[in-house]
Amino acid sequence: MTGASNRPAPEDVRTVACIGAGVIGGGWAAYFLARGYRVVAWDPAPDAEPRLRHLVEAAWPALTELGLAGGASIDHLTVVPSLAEACGEADFVQESAPEDLDLKRSLLADIDAATAQDIVISSSTSGYGMSEMQDKCAHPERTVVGHPFNPPYLIPLVEVVGGTATDPKAVQWAADFFTLAGKSVITMDREVPGFIANRLQEALWREALHMVNAGEATVEQIDRSITDGPGLRWALQGPLLTFHLAGGQGGMAHMLDHFGPSLLSPWTRLAAPELTPELRDAVVAGCDDEAGGRTIDDLVAERDRGVIAILRALGRA
Amino acid sequence: MTGASNRPAPEDVRTVACIGAGVIGGGWAAYFLARGYRVVAWDPAPDAEPRLRHLVEAAWPALTELGLAGGASIDHLTVVPSLAEACGEADFVQESAPEDLDLKRSLLADIDAATAQDIVISSSTSGYGMSEMQDKCAHPERTVVGHPFNPPYLIPLVEVVGGTATDPKAVQWAADFFTLAGKSVITMDREVPGFIANRLQEALWREALHMVNAGEATVEQIDRSITDGPGLRWALQGPLLTFHLAGGQGGMAHMLDHFGPSLLSPWTRLAAPELTPELRDAVVAGCDDEAGGRTIDDLVAERDRGVIAILRALGRA
Repeated sequence: MTGASNRPAPEDVRTVACIGAGVIGGGWAAYFLARGYRVVAWDPAPDAEPRLRHLVEAAWPALTELGLAGGASIDHLTVVPSLAEACGEADFVQESAPEDLDLKRSLLADIDAATAQDIVISSSTSGYGMSEMQDKCAHPERTVVGHPFNPPYLIPLVEVVGGTATDPKAVQWAADFFTLAGKSVITMDREVPGFIANRLQEALWREALHMVNAGEATVEQIDRSITDGPGLRWALQGPLLTFHLAGGQGGMAHMLDHFGPSLLSPWTRLAAPELTPELRDAVVAGCDDEAGGRTIDDLVAERDRGVIAILRALGRA
Repeated sequence: MTGASNRPAPEDVRTVACIGAGVIGGGWAAYFLARGYRVVAWDPAPDAEPRLRHLVEAAWPALTELGLAGGASIDHLTVVPSLAEACGEADFVQESAPEDLDLKRSLLADIDAATAQDIVISSSTSGYGMSEMQDKCAHPERTVVGHPFNPPYLIPLVEVVGGTATDPKAVQWAADFFTLAGKSVITMDREVPGFIANRLQEALWREALHMVNAGEATVEQIDRSITDGPGLRWALQGPLLTFHLAGGQGGMAHMLDHFGPSLLSPWTRLAAPELTPELRDAVVAGCDDEAGGRTIDDLVAERDRGVIAILRALGRA
């Protein structure tokens, strides 16, 4: 008998507890409801229930349009007056409290105490590591980060990573559960502040703040430079595969050999890593892996079809 | 009689010279052909003509699908054996040579010498300022940067900015011409290395290289973290308006007041600017301007419709 003996299989989860019902917690609640789960929610704010119901009702038409799971109903949401009630019957707990380390540490300890020992507890934290949040838990081995993107009911990505006291089986369970629930999961094998997407987003955000601060660009120019420029590609092919296509038939290798020197240019306040042969080769190999058998011509054709589809879908073609 | 007396009005442009016929120059040629212009192209490579025709032919189905301008034809492309022939009859010149400052400086001087005095000459440079490129030109007052995004035949953005010797009327002319030709133009009133979108893209790219270098994430994880996460939002609403919606009903003001402290967190290697009250207020006011009369609820509904449209268009809903 293993330590996880009372943990349901990911496919047997029926009831999800959503702790915290702001924009993220409410978005999670809407998503889990649409995927057919029962959701039991708790939030300490006095107006939590009407706010949460407003959020879920606002998301429901979109979720309905995308297709609800069999048996899904907005009526399967229960808002309860205590954390203990929310966690008591949960097969899985998603915590989405405000981004405050002390608050998260004590809230996770409370959730840990209120939740059956084997149930996995996931935090929506946008940047804290589970190692720094789990230290007051009696059973930290089942606590993981499950970081979503706003709105959690539409954006597929969830980054999953454990802390030093987390059992790798709990990380695997969470990744399996989110995948079954329809999410695009990235499982990280080490804690990095801000995980992956937020680090990338944060670098861009900070450069944008620098530009506004220096009077170099307006908010509107910054936003339009992305929506009408690289943002159209990034919905399709990530930043590295995008550059794989910037090098013509030579791909990322040609691109790095040609544009590598611009890493020394003052095009952002972020200092670049040295482009060692090892780093160059790692990026080139990673792009080749990601491309699979697809040639540059294949990828260009896919990108073009995708950009056209996006422009049309947005009424911009 | 003004100094620009022989410059055609932007709507009277008929012939565009494309100097340099790689991925960017070829993409420009395809775009201008699709918008109904005659294109005269020159590139010093011995196999320039077949490569250029391959690029244009590969782009043509996409351009046809999006809708050609009246009279547009792939047959209006002429590849000529000399720079002088290409520039001789041009109403507008777009230079897209490799990214090498000395090469650009001497090439622009050659273009300047071969092109009628009032014709606007635009460079596709991805990061050099026109001030550093135009110094060998006899008539630098008509030289501007017109920076596109790959592929220029599909991505709408063009960043337009002059150098110290550029006549502001030439900048305005170029902005008007690109706008008439169907582009989304951002006119900058000062030179900043990398302009706007490339600075933002470069900050993200450098952080991605740091992550690969440190073994924190793979190329595939980095790309998927964007395509399945913030990339889906950025095709619709830029990074600042995205964060305007991350603050709930409080918008950017609440977001900055809540997440401002995380600017001090090590979530990327890029140091943030100090979030002074002035910077906070500038970002909040910029978001309000950009939102126009749209409430947070309006923007959330627009974003949701857009993300759903994108997911559907890409076959992912």
